[in-house]
Amino acid sequence: MLERFKPRAEDSERVDVDSLREVVQAIFEKMGTSVDDAAEAADVLVNTDLRGVETHGVSNMLRAYVNQFTSHKVNPRPNMKIERESPGTAVINGDLGLGLILGRRAMEMAMEKAKTVGVGIVTMNNSGHLGAVGHFSMIAAQNDMVGMCATAAGTGVLPTFAAEPRFGTNPISIAAPAKNEPPLLFDAATSQIAGNKFNLARRVGSDLLPGWIADKDGTPIMEETPVPEEGWYGQLLPMGGTREMGSHKGYGMMLMVEVLGAFLSGSVPGMFDTEDFESGYKHYFAAYNISAFTDPDAFKEKMDRMLKMLRETRPAKGHDRVLYPGLSEAEETADRMANGVPLHKEVIEWFDGMVGELGVPELKKA
Amino acid sequence: MLERFKPRAEDSERVDVDSLREVVQAIFEKMGTSVDDAAEAADVLVNTDLRGVETHGVSNMLRAYVNQFTSHKVNPRPNMKIERESPGTAVINGDLGLGLILGRRAMEMAMEKAKTVGVGIVTMNNSGHLGAVGHFSMIAAQNDMVGMCATAAGTGVLPTFAAEPRFGTNPISIAAPAKNEPPLLFDAATSQIAGNKFNLARRVGSDLLPGWIADKDGTPIMEETPVPEEGWYGQLLPMGGTREMGSHKGYGMMLMVEVLGAFLSGSVPGMFDTEDFESGYKHYFAAYNISAFTDPDAFKEKMDRMLKMLRETRPAKGHDRVLYPGLSEAEETADRMANGVPLHKEVIEWFDGMVGELGVPELKKA
Repeated sequence: MLERFKPRAEDSERVDVDSLREVVQAIFEKMGTSVDDAAEAADVLVNTDLRGVETHGVSNMLRAYVNQFTSHKVNPRPNMKIERESPGTAVINGDLGLGLILGRRAMEMAMEKAKTVGVGIVTMNNSGHLGAVGHFSMIAAQNDMVGMCATAAGTGVLPTFAAEPRFGTNPISIAAPAKNEPPLLFDAATSQIAGNKFNLARRVGSDLLPGWIADKDGTPIMEETPVPEEGWYGQLLPMGGTREMGSHKGYGMMLMVEVLGAFLSGSVPGMFDTEDFESGYKHYFAAYNISAFTDPDAFKEKMDRMLKMLRETRPAKGHDRVLYPGLSEAEETADRMANGVPLHKEVIEWFDGMVGELGVPELKKA
Repeated sequence: MLERFKPRAEDSERVDVDSLREVVQAIFEKMGTSVDDAAEAADVLVNTDLRGVETHGVSNMLRAYVNQFTSHKVNPRPNMKIERESPGTAVINGDLGLGLILGRRAMEMAMEKAKTVGVGIVTMNNSGHLGAVGHFSMIAAQNDMVGMCATAAGTGVLPTFAAEPRFGTNPISIAAPAKNEPPLLFDAATSQIAGNKFNLARRVGSDLLPGWIADKDGTPIMEETPVPEEGWYGQLLPMGGTREMGSHKGYGMMLMVEVLGAFLSGSVPGMFDTEDFESGYKHYFAAYNISAFTDPDAFKEKMDRMLKMLRETRPAKGHDRVLYPGLSEAEETADRMANGVPLHKEVIEWFDGMVGELGVPELKKA
C-alpha cells in the first residue's frame, strides 16, 4: 500500500489479535448471525487486517456491516440455495447473506468440484459484500489448488471516455501455493483504486494522486486533489486512469468481472439497478485442482523458484527491493501476529463505543 | 487503437480480403503446413486484420512466422499430445506447433468439456505464438459460451520497481455473446503496450508516450520518447506504467497469466529460460457453457442491454462517444469486409517479394 494511505504511528495503536477476533465475533453475534457465522466473519476480517489490507479489514468494513445489519440490508440468517448445478459448476442464490460469511462455503464447493472434474466454478447472486477477494482465493491455495475470486457490485466507476459511472470497483484475485516462499496472492480492484481507499485517504488526511479520479465532465484530474466532499462515487477512473496510460484495459477488466460475477450468476450488472446495489453483490469463485494439470510438488517448487527470482530481481534506481504480490502481506502477518494489529485511534474509539452500545467485550491493547 | 499507431492513409493501400486470405494460406503451405492448417492460420490472421488489430494481423506476424518456419523454430507438422486429462480439464503438449494453428482445437476441446461438466479448461505447453488471444475467446462466444484465452512467453517486461525484465507481455482476453449488439470482446496485453506496438510505432514514425517504458535503471520515462534503437525488450513497463498509476496491478495480472498459462500447463515461466523463448509459448483456454449457469437467451438479452447502455453513456468532455471492447472491432470488420484491408506500403512490398521468393499468388488490391 502507498505510504499516503498508512496512518501515522502516533495516530494508531496496536491491539491484541485474539481480543480483536473475539470482539469482532461478538459484534456479529449481536447482529443476529449464528455463532459459527460470526466466527467465520471475524476470521475473514482479522486475517485481512493481519495481511495489512486495511481497506478491507475491521477499520472500514465492520462499521459498514453493522449499518447494513441494523438497516436490514443484509440477512443475518441466510439460506443459500443452489439455482443451477453441473459437475463443474454451481450458481448459488446468497439470500442476501454477507459474502464474507458465505464465501468460504462457495469456494469449498468449487474445490469439491475441482477434485472430481479438475476445475470448479461457483457463482453467487443476491449476496452482500464479500470482503477482500484474495481471502477466498487463498482458501484454494492452502489446499493445493489455484484459486481465483472476483466480485461485482454498484455503479461508481467511469468507463474510458465516459462522464457517467457504469461499474463497481470489481476486484479480482488469484492465489497459488508455493513450497517455502510465502504464496502468490494478487488481489486488486480493476478501478484505479479501491473504494475504501477514499475512506483511508480521508482518515489520514491525504490527497488523491493524479489520474485517479475525473472531474464532473469525466475529464481525468491530472494533479493531486483532495478527496471529493460528497464522496468518490461516480468519479473514480478505471485501472490505468487515462486512455494513454491504459484505462481501456482497466475498463475491459471491469467488464470481465461483470461477466464472470454478474452475468454467469444469472444476475444483472449494477448499472441496471434503479436503486444503488439493488441487485446485490455478485461473486465468482474458481478452483483449479493442480494435480489435474501437473504434479503439485513440481508446481510448488517452480513457484518457489519464480517468487525467489522476483524478490531477488535487481531493483530500479531508488528502490530497495522488488516485491511480489503476497510477499509484504506475509511479512505484515508475521509482524502483526507478534505485535498486534495497528488500528487508527478513530477506529478504536468506535470499538469503545460498541462496548456500551452492544455490550461486547472491550478491545485489549497489544 | 491510439491514432499514433495508425498508418497515414497515404502510406497504406487497401487489399482484397479474399485475395489476402488466399495469399496468406499459400505462404503457410509453402512453409510446410497441411492445407487445412494453412487455411486455419490464414483465417486467424485475416480475421485479426479485419478487426483492425494490426499488431497481430498479417503486417507484423506473418513475417515473424515465416522466419520461425525457415529457421525451424516452429514445427509445421505438429502432433499435439494430451499429457493430462480430466472431465473438465486437459493439458496439451503443442509439439512446437504454432498456437495460431492449434488454438482452435484447444478451445474446441474446452468447449466439449464445458458441454459435459459446465466449464472446460485446456492449457498448452511447448507451443509457438498464438496470435491475438481474443480470436480464440470469440470461438466460444460464437457458440453460446463465455470464452477466455491468455498466453505467456518470454521475459521482456519489468515487474514494478525492477530493473530487470521477468515477464512476457502476457495478454488475456474474454468474449461473451450478445443478441443483436456486436459481442463483447476484450483482448489486451498485461504490459503497458503489446510488443508489436513498437513495430507499429517505428513503422509509422511515432514516439512512445510517457510511462510506457523505463530507462536502463528501471525508472519509468515520463516524457515522450523514441522507440529504443535496440528494441523494447527489457524496458517495457507493466500495465499502469508507474506504481502510482497502478503498475503493481499490471504486474499482478502478468503473474496471473503466468500461473494460468505456464504453471497450469506444467511448463515454466519465461524467466527460467536460459535462451529466450526456450520453453515456448504457453496458452490457456477456458470455455464457460452459459446454459450451465443461466438461460442463454436471457444472458444475451442482458448483454445487449449492457452494451447498448455503455455505447450510449454520456461521453466525457471532448469525446464523441463511449466505446466498449469489441465495438470498434465490429465496425472495422464491416468496413474492411466492404472496402478491403489497409496495409502499410512496406508490408505490401514484403508481399510482392514473396511472389518471387515463394511463388505465391500476387496480392490483389481492393
